[in-house]
Amino acid sequence: MNFKLVFRLAGRVLLVEAAAMLLPLAVTLLYRENPLPFLIPIPILLAVGLALSALKGKDSFFPREGFFAVGLIWLLIGFFGALPFFCWSRLNPGSGLFPHFIDCFFESVSGFTTTGSSILTAVEPLPKGILFWRSFTHWLGGMGVLVLALALLPSMGSRSLNLMKAESPGPVVSKLVPKTSQSSKILYGIYCVLTGAQVIALRLAGMPWYDSVVHAFATAGTGGFSTRNLSVAAYQSPAVEIIITVFMLLFSINFALFFLVLCGKVKQALQSDELRFFLLVVAASTLLIAFNIAGYYPEGGALRHAAFQVATIISTTGFASADFNLWPEFSRCLLVILMFIGACAGSTGGGLKCSRVLLILRCIKREIRRVIHPRSVNVVKLDGRVVEEDVLCSVLIFFAAYLFIILGASLLVALDNFTFGTTFTAVVACISNIGPGLEMVGPMGNFSAFSGLSKLILSLCMIVGRLEVLPILVLLSGTAWKRS
Amino acid sequence: MNFKLVFRLAGRVLLVEAAAMLLPLAVTLLYRENPLPFLIPIPILLAVGLALSALKGKDSFFPREGFFAVGLIWLLIGFFGALPFFCWSRLNPGSGLFPHFIDCFFESVSGFTTTGSSILTAVEPLPKGILFWRSFTHWLGGMGVLVLALALLPSMGSRSLNLMKAESPGPVVSKLVPKTSQSSKILYGIYCVLTGAQVIALRLAGMPWYDSVVHAFATAGTGGFSTRNLSVAAYQSPAVEIIITVFMLLFSINFALFFLVLCGKVKQALQSDELRFFLLVVAASTLLIAFNIAGYYPEGGALRHAAFQVATIISTTGFASADFNLWPEFSRCLLVILMFIGACAGSTGGGLKCSRVLLILRCIKREIRRVIHPRSVNVVKLDGRVVEEDVLCSVLIFFAAYLFIILGASLLVALDNFTFGTTFTAVVACISNIGPGLEMVGPMGNFSAFSGLSKLILSLCMIVGRLEVLPILVLLSGTAWKRS
Repeated sequence: MNFKLVFRLAGRVLLVEAAAMLLPLAVTLLYRENPLPFLIPIPILLAVGLALSALKGKDSFFPREGFFAVGLIWLLIGFFGALPFFCWSRLNPGSGLFPHFIDCFFESVSGFTTTGSSILTAVEPLPKGILFWRSFTHWLGGMGVLVLALALLPSMGSRSLNLMKAESPGPVVSKLVPKTSQSSKILYGIYCVLTGAQVIALRLAGMPWYDSVVHAFATAGTGGFSTRNLSVAAYQSPAVEIIITVFMLLFSINFALFFLVLCGKVKQALQSDELRFFLLVVAASTLLIAFNIAGYYPEGGALRHAAFQVATIISTTGFASADFNLWPEFSRCLLVILMFIGACAGSTGGGLKCSRVLLILRCIKREIRRVIHPRSVNVVKLDGRVVEEDVLCSVLIFFAAYLFIILGASLLVALDNFTFGTTFTAVVACISNIGPGLEMVGPMGNFSAFSGLSKLILSLCMIVGRLEVLPILVLLSGTAWKRS
Repeated sequence: MNFKLVFRLAGRVLLVEAAAMLLPLAVTLLYRENPLPFLIPIPILLAVGLALSALKGKDSFFPREGFFAVGLIWLLIGFFGALPFFCWSRLNPGSGLFPHFIDCFFESVSGFTTTGSSILTAVEPLPKGILFWRSFTHWLGGMGVLVLALALLPSMGSRSLNLMKAESPGPVVSKLVPKTSQSSKILYGIYCVLTGAQVIALRLAGMPWYDSVVHAFATAGTGGFSTRNLSVAAYQSPAVEIIITVFMLLFSINFALFFLVLCGKVKQALQSDELRFFLLVVAASTLLIAFNIAGYYPEGGALRHAAFQVATIISTTGFASADFNLWPEFSRCLLVILMFIGACAGSTGGGLKCSRVLLILRCIKREIRRVIHPRSVNVVKLDGRVVEEDVLCSVLIFFAAYLFIILGASLLVALDNFTFGTTFTAVVACISNIGPGLEMVGPMGNFSAFSGLSKLILSLCMIVGRLEVLPILVLLSGTAWKRS
């Protein structure tokens, strides 16, 4: 392992993180809040970032360095991103909102991984600058901090694809254009335009500017941190709920499809197998849940609430417009299944990803076909093209690893002795980067009651989910730590 | 599909089932009970069996016929095996124990699939003949009804391997000797000897003869139906619990290993990767749980109870010596994980099977190795031999299909509106052929409160689990029903 190069790369990303903190710093100044929660961490990040960037070493860069670097960098940005919360809590010791550093780390990792699980019992006592940072981490993490670093700092050459491969969600990385740094810029361009559009839409629907920006950040990253204790439900505005529903779904779609639309290839974009599967699941789930909960909303709104909750879960955002914990078990169980499925590959959402679920379903269908027609040609296709056997195998192994990690993490979290529903769905909500689960960690609950160990495990689950398992496994494997 | 041949085969198995009912009939006569619950079904089975066996047709027999036949036959034996319960309940309308035919079907399928889940709120009011039949179905289903038919009715020639493949548990079918009917006889020989040994051991520990036989049947099939409401806990005998623990573990081991021991190849048997993995999981889980529950048993017995519960779950038997529902969540969660793992391939137990879990773990390890050392040779081995890629792929697809079916079935069972813990573990307990789950379906609970639809879904899950998914998927697929 080429450690020097890995650390140099980490240093650069920390510099980007320091730059990112300037935005919430400006917010604190604008609202005349105490700027220290940002003025303390920024110099620390600069110092560490510059020191690491100055490391010299060989330029050899293979996939293992890519995976290792991505795993390590995400742990580091989570750690340093926790500093503003930590500084604020030490400056306001009476608040009781971030009792230990592990709580700050959990919240920061939950932000960057776009999970949106929170250990906060209330968010409204927090100042605007801190809440801005909290949701801004979603926006930064959504498209990928390394993709951002690639867009801002080119000169990575051929290494960049290995990094994108390790950070980008989905079974196959599709470069939009031959040059990776160019691809990153296009992706961030689409991302910014969509975020801007949502800010304006929310403002027009009557949300204040600040709230619009913060909620747009949280939607764009499919994160789910809100500025209100009751989340989106606090605004009691069907218009706001519908706008957020639409944008949650938009941010769950593969960004490559938006690029196709921009190039005028609308028809090709609409023929995507994954998109069709995603829309089918959303439509079917919404109708089933609306039917199931109709009796709970005699004055109407069942369809709107169903659509919002389906969108918030399948996009892995985690906003709440209603407490689905109080819904019948059928709807709750369907939402748990959507937690596993997740968004489309190449979007900012988490979960297994629709394309993987679709490929697995087609593999199962093929297995049945093999028994019935043993001599026929049997390949699995996606978008009309044959998917290679080793890609299928990787998808299946990913699925198995995902499940095994869920079971293993559940076992450790179970040490806290909460119910099976709470324990299991807390882990699923974290690894799929959703936010709320069922029972104690439902939409109106939070993760504050867990022990420090569980918060650490759950934080790791979030990173495992965001980076799609392999980088963290590589980081944890002994052989990766050998010098090359 | 060659339907005539499939039905002829089904007819033969129903004749074997009719013959099997003679044993409980003898028990009713011995204890001077009403023999009608068996005297009515036996002629029906004979008539249907003879009619189907008389069908003439081509002899073409391919894997699809094997899978199709096995799926269909298991549904049929479940249906006809329910008749004694149904007849008894109509003859004793005041008992309220089998309110509908679906309850009888659930109990019969639970018996044959060696699940041991029960819709009975109490078993002690039932006559000895009925309880004998209930546990005898475990013994018949454990080794496989078709394997039994092959042992009793040879002349199947080359078809028999296709049938054994479809019915036998595990990723690879290992024939003990070249001739299939000979293999079946050896397997049943080992099975009978072990069952006999357990009967004698239980009798020596103070259990009455009748109870010893019935509990030995339920242990041998890794089923779990008892003659007492409190299951094994009713005997309050550490000796009985230890004997049953040992035999539950013995019946979870691949029977091919016993054959190796018989041939004097003890060393080779002990080197089995799967056996070592199984023993490791059992030992580690027992110690962890014993440590976790030590405070619940101040007068001692934590280790014995831990070992019993670990054995009962991993062997997928489902006897109860303690109510693990009352244990801390860590132990409960660990038991849920064991529910997924299950016994060894080629045993009478259910679940994913240790060899599959081991292969999946090795695939995940290989995926990490591939990133770190992309150029090294990367194969997955079991027992020193390279496992072919398409076997690995089948194992991974099996795992995915298993999980998808669990989620899908949970969704339908969730319509009954029980908690997530109850719904989810009920499905897992049924598909892994264990018996008890958590919460309402815990060791001291039962499945009576579920709706008819849920009982049907859960019955299908049991068959899906017992036959390892594919036969039922083939049966449900449209194309399989086309005439060839």
